[in-house]
Amino acid sequence: MTDQSSNQMWGGRFAAGPDAIMEAINASIGYDQRMAAQDIAGSRAHAAMLAATGVITDNDAEAIREGLLTVLSEIESGTFQFSTALEDIHMNVEARLKDIIGEPAGRLHTGRSRNDQVATDFKLWVRDQLDAAESGILALIKALLAQAEAGADWVMPGFTHLQVAQPVTWGHHMMAYVEMFGRDLSRVRDARARMNESPLGAAALAGTSFPIDRDMTATALGFDRPAANSLDAVSDRDFALEFLSTASICAMHLSRFAEELVIWSTAQFRFVTLSDRFSTGSSIMPQKKNPDAAELIRAKVGRIFGANTALMMVMKGLPLAYSKDMQEDKEQVFDAADNWMLALAAMEGMVKDMTANRVELAAAAGSGFSTATDLADWMVRVLKVPFRDAHHVTGTLVAMAEDRGCDLPDLSLADMQGVHAGITADIFTVLGVQNSVNSRMSYGGTAPAQVRQQVARWSEILGA
Amino acid sequence: MTDQSSNQMWGGRFAAGPDAIMEAINASIGYDQRMAAQDIAGSRAHAAMLAATGVITDNDAEAIREGLLTVLSEIESGTFQFSTALEDIHMNVEARLKDIIGEPAGRLHTGRSRNDQVATDFKLWVRDQLDAAESGILALIKALLAQAEAGADWVMPGFTHLQVAQPVTWGHHMMAYVEMFGRDLSRVRDARARMNESPLGAAALAGTSFPIDRDMTATALGFDRPAANSLDAVSDRDFALEFLSTASICAMHLSRFAEELVIWSTAQFRFVTLSDRFSTGSSIMPQKKNPDAAELIRAKVGRIFGANTALMMVMKGLPLAYSKDMQEDKEQVFDAADNWMLALAAMEGMVKDMTANRVELAAAAGSGFSTATDLADWMVRVLKVPFRDAHHVTGTLVAMAEDRGCDLPDLSLADMQGVHAGITADIFTVLGVQNSVNSRMSYGGTAPAQVRQQVARWSEILGA
Amino acid sequence: MTDQSSNQMWGGRFAAGPDAIMEAINASIGYDQRMAAQDIAGSRAHAAMLAATGVITDNDAEAIREGLLTVLSEIESGTFQFSTALEDIHMNVEARLKDIIGEPAGRLHTGRSRNDQVATDFKLWVRDQLDAAESGILALIKALLAQAEAGADWVMPGFTHLQVAQPVTWGHHMMAYVEMFGRDLSRVRDARARMNESPLGAAALAGTSFPIDRDMTATALGFDRPAANSLDAVSDRDFALEFLSTASICAMHLSRFAEELVIWSTAQFRFVTLSDRFSTGSSIMPQKKNPDAAELIRAKVGRIFGANTALMMVMKGLPLAYSKDMQEDKEQVFDAADNWMLALAAMEGMVKDMTANRVELAAAAGSGFSTATDLADWMVRVLKVPFRDAHHVTGTLVAMAEDRGCDLPDLSLADMQGVHAGITADIFTVLGVQNSVNSRMSYGGTAPAQVRQQVARWSEILGA
Amino acid sequence: MTDQSSNQMWGGRFAAGPDAIMEAINASIGYDQRMAAQDIAGSRAHAAMLAATGVITDNDAEAIREGLLTVLSEIESGTFQFSTALEDIHMNVEARLKDIIGEPAGRLHTGRSRNDQVATDFKLWVRDQLDAAESGILALIKALLAQAEAGADWVMPGFTHLQVAQPVTWGHHMMAYVEMFGRDLSRVRDARARMNESPLGAAALAGTSFPIDRDMTATALGFDRPAANSLDAVSDRDFALEFLSTASICAMHLSRFAEELVIWSTAQFRFVTLSDRFSTGSSIMPQKKNPDAAELIRAKVGRIFGANTALMMVMKGLPLAYSKDMQEDKEQVFDAADNWMLALAAMEGMVKDMTANRVELAAAAGSGFSTATDLADWMVRVLKVPFRDAHHVTGTLVAMAEDRGCDLPDLSLADMQGVHAGITADIFTVLGVQNSVNSRMSYGGTAPAQVRQQVARWSEILGA
Repeated sequence: MTDQSSNQMWGGRFAAGPDAIMEAINASIGYDQRMAAQDIAGSRAHAAMLAATGVITDNDAEAIREGLLTVLSEIESGTFQFSTALEDIHMNVEARLKDIIGEPAGRLHTGRSRNDQVATDFKLWVRDQLDAAESGILALIKALLAQAEAGADWVMPGFTHLQVAQPVTWGHHMMAYVEMFGRDLSRVRDARARMNESPLGAAALAGTSFPIDRDMTATALGFDRPAANSLDAVSDRDFALEFLSTASICAMHLSRFAEELVIWSTAQFRFVTLSDRFSTGSSIMPQKKNPDAAELIRAKVGRIFGANTALMMVMKGLPLAYSKDMQEDKEQVFDAADNWMLALAAMEGMVKDMTANRVELAAAAGSGFSTATDLADWMVRVLKVPFRDAHHVTGTLVAMAEDRGCDLPDLSLADMQGVHAGITADIFTVLGVQNSVNSRMSYGGTAPAQVRQQVARWSEILGA
Repeated sequence: MTDQSSNQMWGGRFAAGPDAIMEAINASIGYDQRMAAQDIAGSRAHAAMLAATGVITDNDAEAIREGLLTVLSEIESGTFQFSTALEDIHMNVEARLKDIIGEPAGRLHTGRSRNDQVATDFKLWVRDQLDAAESGILALIKALLAQAEAGADWVMPGFTHLQVAQPVTWGHHMMAYVEMFGRDLSRVRDARARMNESPLGAAALAGTSFPIDRDMTATALGFDRPAANSLDAVSDRDFALEFLSTASICAMHLSRFAEELVIWSTAQFRFVTLSDRFSTGSSIMPQKKNPDAAELIRAKVGRIFGANTALMMVMKGLPLAYSKDMQEDKEQVFDAADNWMLALAAMEGMVKDMTANRVELAAAAGSGFSTATDLADWMVRVLKVPFRDAHHVTGTLVAMAEDRGCDLPDLSLADMQGVHAGITADIFTVLGVQNSVNSRMSYGGTAPAQVRQQVARWSEILGA
Repeated sequence: MTDQSSNQMWGGRFAAGPDAIMEAINASIGYDQRMAAQDIAGSRAHAAMLAATGVITDNDAEAIREGLLTVLSEIESGTFQFSTALEDIHMNVEARLKDIIGEPAGRLHTGRSRNDQVATDFKLWVRDQLDAAESGILALIKALLAQAEAGADWVMPGFTHLQVAQPVTWGHHMMAYVEMFGRDLSRVRDARARMNESPLGAAALAGTSFPIDRDMTATALGFDRPAANSLDAVSDRDFALEFLSTASICAMHLSRFAEELVIWSTAQFRFVTLSDRFSTGSSIMPQKKNPDAAELIRAKVGRIFGANTALMMVMKGLPLAYSKDMQEDKEQVFDAADNWMLALAAMEGMVKDMTANRVELAAAAGSGFSTATDLADWMVRVLKVPFRDAHHVTGTLVAMAEDRGCDLPDLSLADMQGVHAGITADIFTVLGVQNSVNSRMSYGGTAPAQVRQQVARWSEILGA
Repeated sequence: MTDQSSNQMWGGRFAAGPDAIMEAINASIGYDQRMAAQDIAGSRAHAAMLAATGVITDNDAEAIREGLLTVLSEIESGTFQFSTALEDIHMNVEARLKDIIGEPAGRLHTGRSRNDQVATDFKLWVRDQLDAAESGILALIKALLAQAEAGADWVMPGFTHLQVAQPVTWGHHMMAYVEMFGRDLSRVRDARARMNESPLGAAALAGTSFPIDRDMTATALGFDRPAANSLDAVSDRDFALEFLSTASICAMHLSRFAEELVIWSTAQFRFVTLSDRFSTGSSIMPQKKNPDAAELIRAKVGRIFGANTALMMVMKGLPLAYSKDMQEDKEQVFDAADNWMLALAAMEGMVKDMTANRVELAAAAGSGFSTATDLADWMVRVLKVPFRDAHHVTGTLVAMAEDRGCDLPDLSLADMQGVHAGITADIFTVLGVQNSVNSRMSYGGTAPAQVRQQVARWSEILGA
């Protein structure tokens, strides 16, 4: 390995070597080594282009490209010695390349700079994560579709304000999350398409006088096109921020579902049983079965949005072009990406494993005068009573049932006619929970037929 | 007007009227009256659909639709009496409608709920703001293009770390912001397309048993389609969060430009002169010309991202479906939208008015050995010296010039050859600032020809 | 009133008047008029000091001080005409003062600047809010103490992971919040003490050559001392940030309690009944009783911490001394303060009104093998079994009871001895819920005696 | 070592072992091993107390306490084998203790739980960091005092809006930061005092029936007292949030100073020269000397406040008592603490090393009509002209000087008298920069005598 006691790359300008504090605050190799594969892919594409455009010889390019593969294999096998004095992944790779192939290594950095190099590496890394997120979201959606299909007609309470409002179906509830994660998927794809422009060749900030071919490297690296302004290309971290805001919204969805699973797992609700795999015990209370995975998933939105906050604050007010502040971008994104993928996987696992407790769900669905709306709607539909009046009559009947400690269907027809003379025995047909959900046939409604239609639509979208 | 001492809409259940604290925390009419036009548009579409599907009579629908226009004109003319006891815009409008048209007003709320109604109103409002943002960004981009075209070949320093790095052109710097705001535009359009699904008809959360036609209301309101899950439709605030994150990233771009304008306006930089219109004086220092508008624009990212934080935190962990927490969504979005539009307009005005100080820009462009890279690149290109070696030679020459208090072109050929024997007099052709920028012809580079090409590309995109 | 078409205070430097955009972004009178009383108090103290130090005459000071009282009464009575062209509250007040008293008004601004004036006004305003927060927190603590005292021995489930863990008492749970709000109180007091230094007399940024007496104005305004560095005095917004972070933590506590109230109010838990005053109905579901106030309180942490985020981001990277960015401070703090006070008052009201459902609490307290720990502890204490072994035995017994669908006390002694031979009939004395809570006599534990001791301690602290 | 394939601590309840995802999301040993010393200190104190109160034997306690020292030495020497299957530091330590001492290890966990154990460990860790922050801030203040003392009378421009406003002194500017960091110090101390209550003995959430002595363990661990409510003790993370908000405000101060250093280091300002130790070069621009440390410090506020956001969001709406969400607390605090300490140390190093460029500072101090205020004040003081009128005259004179391209002292007396007849030659005595700063003798003003008085005050406070 090279001499690691000082950074030989900077030349002779600095008399004093960076001391421990500066090294600690300045060096990024501790984390940016995660971009090794991207860095080497970028350098290999760059070298091939330099040869194609005649900037370096084919022999040099070949030596560089082969040498970089050797470096990559060293890194992948764990034998590579990372050096903090060499600061970052770019310098570490290049120094090692020089060890291996000698002088031609010094020609690799022609027509580029660390500024466009790091932007390229980081974009490639983020792009990979967007692809991973797409997979993770798709897997979660599939798990939800399976639950929805199985329980398209299982009744459960629909809540507003966490109060029982109207009966809905299990499948309908699952499909609500499919819609949420479907939007996340759409955001992920939009973000990927928008960010897929290559910074490589923007050089330090101004472009270069070498006759480079930025389209060639862009294509080689899977970018749609080269970024159109070199100052912007090295100053832009929108792709990281959009990644973080997209992840944050998705993590928020996960937090909502996780909250429901925590509540549904309580002894009071018993709506769902989570698998042992995603639960834990307690060191002092052996009977406990704690929804740890759900709680940890619920928390991840904090971590991911915290990263979003951090990077937004870092970028605030930064003049062009590259400023060192931007080095703070990677750890935030790495941590957010890891936790997003983990949360998606854990949620997918929980959804696959969980069991809906149909008896408890059905019992709860019928409680709390949950078909009061059906009663009011019946009056509007059949008796042509204005909605607001029907609402008032229903309220009076609910109060009567509450006073008597009974449910709505337990009131007699006479009771009901005492409040509104037009009510007929037909009213009892709409007060049952199953009738209620079956009747909500408006598009997107909770009727099992509607739920199955949405499951089918999504299955088609996913090509399943 | 109706009796405002209690909310007659809830029926008779509550013995106690809400006291002052509850009214203060619960009522939203103080701010949601901004959605009056959207609320009335939604109700008019709903009424027309109820008639078309036979749920209400054509006469009732006509009375409702005409009555709503009367209400709208009262609101627009400022004669409408808003009532806090009626809580929100929906109740205020409906109560007034009842005053005007009587009994048919009570049929309007058939087949819908406040939950889908507020989601619809709010989405329409946000959609209008996305359209306004698109206009504001386009206007700003046009102002930047004008600056870029005028100054495609004006030289100025390109900075990294706020240190002079390489010469660039004024036009190139302006075009960097065009790219940024261009991405903002793209995000705005994606957000608009994604959110354009109608919640109307989702009712409280479960859909409805009335034979409503959600496609009809969606079309009438300019939505692409009805939202596909009624639970999600009333629980979803993604559109607000995506609005806020999109606005935040754009505001971050504005903050970067504003920071530059503040720095460029200093007595030390003098790169730019802002117009009096966007500057202010001081109560104690009469000679001051302060870049207030730029500073305020710089600050807006805090406010807008603060709103993003607020709503993200509100939504964290909320179980389905509607929870009252979600009422906190509107003030955040209203305030962020107002400030985003204002900041865009103020920046557009500043950009149109500002004058680049070409003499100071040119002088600064040549300072700080800004063409050192050109020297190194010349050695690589002409002498075939490896980049890293050329870099080292250049460093030595810069140190020599710095010692002598002179600039690079002031070193003699003999001086240079003393460091590297291969250097020839041709070297002096690349040390000039104008030569430097002209040479950076890589795609997206700072060469005036490249800048003009990008201006042309954007002008075509904008149809200008 | 003065001519409002232009700001006469700036003198003649600016040819162009600020146009509509600039006025919209620049003027603060729309909100900073809330500091009118503070502004006038500060100016009156300043005028008195200027006279005492001989900078202005006693007559002028008297005219100014009387005139300011007139202005204040105009503002308080609503007859004052605020002018946007005069930008802010300071200019509005001074211009009106000039109308009333003429030339001496022009002497008031001697030895100060808008920079120290606004810092002083804002500090006084924030200080008032800290005092209001102290009152609000104290009132809430008192309401909690009353609940704790009443229910010192009411058993309820203690949760971890929202799973029933061990029985606790209602009073113990209430006292947990007393501790939290007690820390909030302590933070409020620390923040008030720390911020209580007067900026007045720091002038624009450098102090002044007038022989002013900053101690005199500090004392008159209730400050402990003048701020010790004039640059810092006009640049500092720590007091606003500490206000916001203190409010945020308190709002987080409120969100936790609010979440519990929402969950406890469900049909599934029924732990608590909220009063009608702090609940609402539904437009479509007449039987619903929604915990709106609790939900809105739960949401407030988003809004308040959003304000914290906003101001933190505004202040990030601002060079000294005053920058216009800082004008964004007030709306954030005003909004956060309003919502903090409102949330405290609403929570106090809810706590006073709410009814613990003792039957449901007691039933739940005994469910879920909640005394398993007591069983394990008994084995450790009486049989001297190592804790980890006792834990294992208990787990086996719980599993046995679960299999049989019974509770721990329903197992026979023989059953138990089958798992661990040493168990005696004495075991049944610790398996009851009331025994369990009574036994937890460690300091701060849930035993009623401990709870009463803490209630007494807090009552003494509060001087009740 | 113990069998690491499953967590033996939970007993036999779970059939399925946690799979890879669950392990990844659930295990904390990857980071909470940083609390090993605190965990062992807490356990040793607990064991001693258990013996003193007769819960365990002296022999067992001694074995435990000695065994824990062995574990600690293994950890410190790097020979300890951490196991992910054992989840966290507490289990890892206890399992290893059992290997070493056998059965008595099983008695250590008597009368406590992981919930109070982790709260205790984490509080001890945070307390150590508050102490470290105090040291770091004190060192930085001392470095600033040295700069202030040296440059108490060096003139430089005072800025508002980054425009030259009035001359100030270098020492005055340094002392502004001393005030800021002084407030940070005060916040650190308040936070430490407030958090210094021991959770140990709160057990899972309800306290314990063992006759433990919580005062004894509190004292042994340096706490002021035991926490007074066991539910709160295990649910409270205020200490972490107050740590983060205190760190955030301090980091914001650092960001402001860092921003100034970045601007001051530009070729355009040249106010300060940073040492090579805290600067870096560029891979492509050998002449660059980049203020990397300052930029990285500027960015740290994002990271630290991002952590604050993350934890605030995690804690939002968490019901009592312990929820697994709270496990997300540590990584945020660890990262924020590391970066806060690093930023303080780096700033201290930069301040010690940096050189004020007195010539450039003085030249800039006199530019921009910076003594215009002095002129206006002279008119008020000597001619008794009302301030607002003096302001207007000064504005006219500044405009005249600007037109002529000269400075204020270059105007003739006749010129001045043409604008205001009362002006005398005495006016020229206040137009010099040094006179200006000397005259600002108000308390906290920029006069060198005032600066020295503040340096002396702070030196006394620090006991230097």
